[in-house]
Amino acid sequence: MATVHLIEYEEASPEVRAVYDDIRATRQSDFINNFWKALAHSPEQLKRTWEAVKVVMAPGALGALTKELIYIAISAANSCDYCIHSHTASARAKGMSETQYAELLAVIAMAHQTNGLATAMKVPVDPEFLVGGEGRGSLT
Amino acid sequence: MATVHLIEYEEASPEVRAVYDDIRATRQSDFINNFWKALAHSPEQLKRTWEAVKVVMAPGALGALTKELIYIAISAANSCDYCIHSHTASARAKGMSETQYAELLAVIAMAHQTNGLATAMKVPVDPEFLVGGEGRGSLT
Amino acid sequence: MATVHLIEYEEASPEVRAVYDDIRATRQSDFINNFWKALAHSPEQLKRTWEAVKVVMAPGALGALTKELIYIAISAANSCDYCIHSHTASARAKGMSETQYAELLAVIAMAHQTNGLATAMKVPVDPEFLVGGEGRGSLT
Amino acid sequence: MATVHLIEYEEASPEVRAVYDDIRATRQSDFINNFWKALAHSPEQLKRTWEAVKVVMAPGALGALTKELIYIAISAANSCDYCIHSHTASARAKGMSETQYAELLAVIAMAHQTNGLATAMKVPVDPEFLVGGEGRGSLT
Amino acid sequence: MATVHLIEYEEASPEVRAVYDDIRATRQSDFINNFWKALAHSPEQLKRTWEAVKVVMAPGALGALTKELIYIAISAANSCDYCIHSHTASARAKGMSETQYAELLAVIAMAHQTNGLATAMKVPVDPEFLVGGEGRGSLT
Amino acid sequence: MATVHLIEYEEASPEVRAVYDDIRATRQSDFINNFWKALAHSPEQLKRTWEAVKVVMAPGALGALTKELIYIAISAANSCDYCIHSHTASARAKGMSETQYAELLAVIAMAHQTNGLATAMKVPVDPEFLVGGEGRGSLT
Repeated sequence: MATVHLIEYEEASPEVRAVYDDIRATRQSDFINNFWKALAHSPEQLKRTWEAVKVVMAPGALGALTKELIYIAISAANSCDYCIHSHTASARAKGMSETQYAELLAVIAMAHQTNGLATAMKVPVDPEFLVGGEGRGSLT
Repeated sequence: MATVHLIEYEEASPEVRAVYDDIRATRQSDFINNFWKALAHSPEQLKRTWEAVKVVMAPGALGALTKELIYIAISAANSCDYCIHSHTASARAKGMSETQYAELLAVIAMAHQTNGLATAMKVPVDPEFLVGGEGRGSLT
Repeated sequence: MATVHLIEYEEASPEVRAVYDDIRATRQSDFINNFWKALAHSPEQLKRTWEAVKVVMAPGALGALTKELIYIAISAANSCDYCIHSHTASARAKGMSETQYAELLAVIAMAHQTNGLATAMKVPVDPEFLVGGEGRGSLT
Repeated sequence: MATVHLIEYEEASPEVRAVYDDIRATRQSDFINNFWKALAHSPEQLKRTWEAVKVVMAPGALGALTKELIYIAISAANSCDYCIHSHTASARAKGMSETQYAELLAVIAMAHQTNGLATAMKVPVDPEFLVGGEGRGSLT
Repeated sequence: MATVHLIEYEEASPEVRAVYDDIRATRQSDFINNFWKALAHSPEQLKRTWEAVKVVMAPGALGALTKELIYIAISAANSCDYCIHSHTASARAKGMSETQYAELLAVIAMAHQTNGLATAMKVPVDPEFLVGGEGRGSLT
Repeated sequence: MATVHLIEYEEASPEVRAVYDDIRATRQSDFINNFWKALAHSPEQLKRTWEAVKVVMAPGALGALTKELIYIAISAANSCDYCIHSHTASARAKGMSETQYAELLAVIAMAHQTNGLATAMKVPVDPEFLVGGEGRGSLT
């Protein structure tokens, strides 16, 4: 249960309805997910966050699916249950195959493992990795 | 400074040298980065981790660069300084453009922001996002 | 479901009852929340933690509500579901308005966003921010 | 060392200079801190983030200093070195006394401690803490 | 609810069944826990992870129970609900007494508390703690 | 550099000196590490934290070295650089062998890996793991 009441379209103020309308138009669907209904207590923050999401998640130099995969990975690292579920659903809706999902999970597992090791041993950064160094790639 | 001495090739045991040799052959470079030199105190774990990295980070249903971007994002979420630097260098070596990097950073910023909000408000997961639900995508 | 049985007043040992009695007297309410019932398996830790909470959360140079807002923010960053709910309830009981809550959420969102960015880019700390530097403030 | 070159005013594009100028005007100081110089590689994200910071961190139902204290607490929970230093400097510049800082640190210590305990024991949320429950406050 | 269907023995492929059979033989029990049923979508990762778990969690220079206590502590720090429950059950099955559990929780609380403090104050590492320094112990 | 000046014995107040004296007597060494010198700005918190550390880290149902290993693991999960270094030094001073350290690192790597996977897939907790269930152990 949320710490706030979820604001439905019918009870929303005009500013909130305007954002909900834009969410529906952008997605071409009536569905408004709970995140926005919770955030609607602050119409300014609702609008600002939604406007930013539209800009950031639009396809650009990175594809829309790649952006969703990155979002899932961060949400798992931050233990955000809601975001894990919403962005996994979103990635599937954008065409993520089960093989792609399995590879994403494998990278998640590998990164957490080496993050834990490198942090526990406080491994010093190789000068080659720094900007202005030789810029060699790593396999972790 | 690391919590362990970094083991150089010259002082390494034969099992460790065998892994170092494979790292060099795989990368087609003499460079062995500090992460492996620290892990070399445990030759079994060194070999197991390196073997897994080769499998996981190889191009597959996801491209090699996409995997690096996911790795950077997780490493930032886990505050792993070493991994942030090594995988940012690696992504650049694999062709990440500055525009792609800027978009990665924008997704990192957006995901952390909505992770914080969804967790703080304990937003309940929409049934549509669950497996067996309607599977609708989200814009967060 | 907890990893331990929750110890109710009726079944508690005298040392545990003494802490429960002090919780009730301090709060002027019969309510003992689950956190203490779980911690009661270790009467020493129960007593030590409760005594510290009373000292730390009492109004001082920071007001009691300000302390609750800080507690909510940390609990969200650490993904502690229990603590998010208990301290959001507590902040409301201490008079947090819905506008204050909306502003708290906005700061949570902003801090997570810039934390993610500054960590991902490993931004070096400006000398002006260090003790003994010029001590200039920042807008992040 | 950052993963990106820090963009100084002299080498900045007109859009970036416009943001830098607004930062200087808002702060009534020439000082531009490194966070913005790193973010300037993406003028759109620089402008969007700066505009949001100005809105979010302005005094409102919560005071400017209270917002800084919350920011420090989140930055510590997220291990963001840069943000810890920049917002501690900022809080001092906004008048944080050493006694207030000591109390902030005590709340940080207490919240981390009980976050760890409540999460490790998976303490179930009391119904009284939920919206629509009795809304009783807690001392953690 | 998981983001993936849980694969039961009856519907599993031969490679997956081979791992399930080994799990059952190793544990001398028919019980396959959900973690493996979720991971079974990637037979390669299932096998690799299981093989590693057997090596890592076997008694060695550290006892099997000590390894479980460390696993619980990390899982709590990472807010992994599943892992907290599975490894607390496992530690109990390996003989963890309630007194040992209480002491584990006390260390968890203390470490989180001092982690929060040392990070918030950015305490510099004493040279004595570094490899090649005097190597003196600490009480935190 | 710390966010606070480190208070040396010579400039400390009598209450702070009393704690420093007890630290020296308990350790049978003149060495006072930086953590306490930073915390000394709040004599009450210094004393309370030190008193708790003595109780919690003393050998009991868990040995002193086991407690240090758990502390290291949590500190790595929380990315606390200071605590990683101080407790790794402390574990070595208490007799941790390099083989024990290698096994600790292997458990850290394994736990982070499965934490990431279980969280990303939101694996539901098996009823057998809950208190009052059958209590079967797990290999993760």
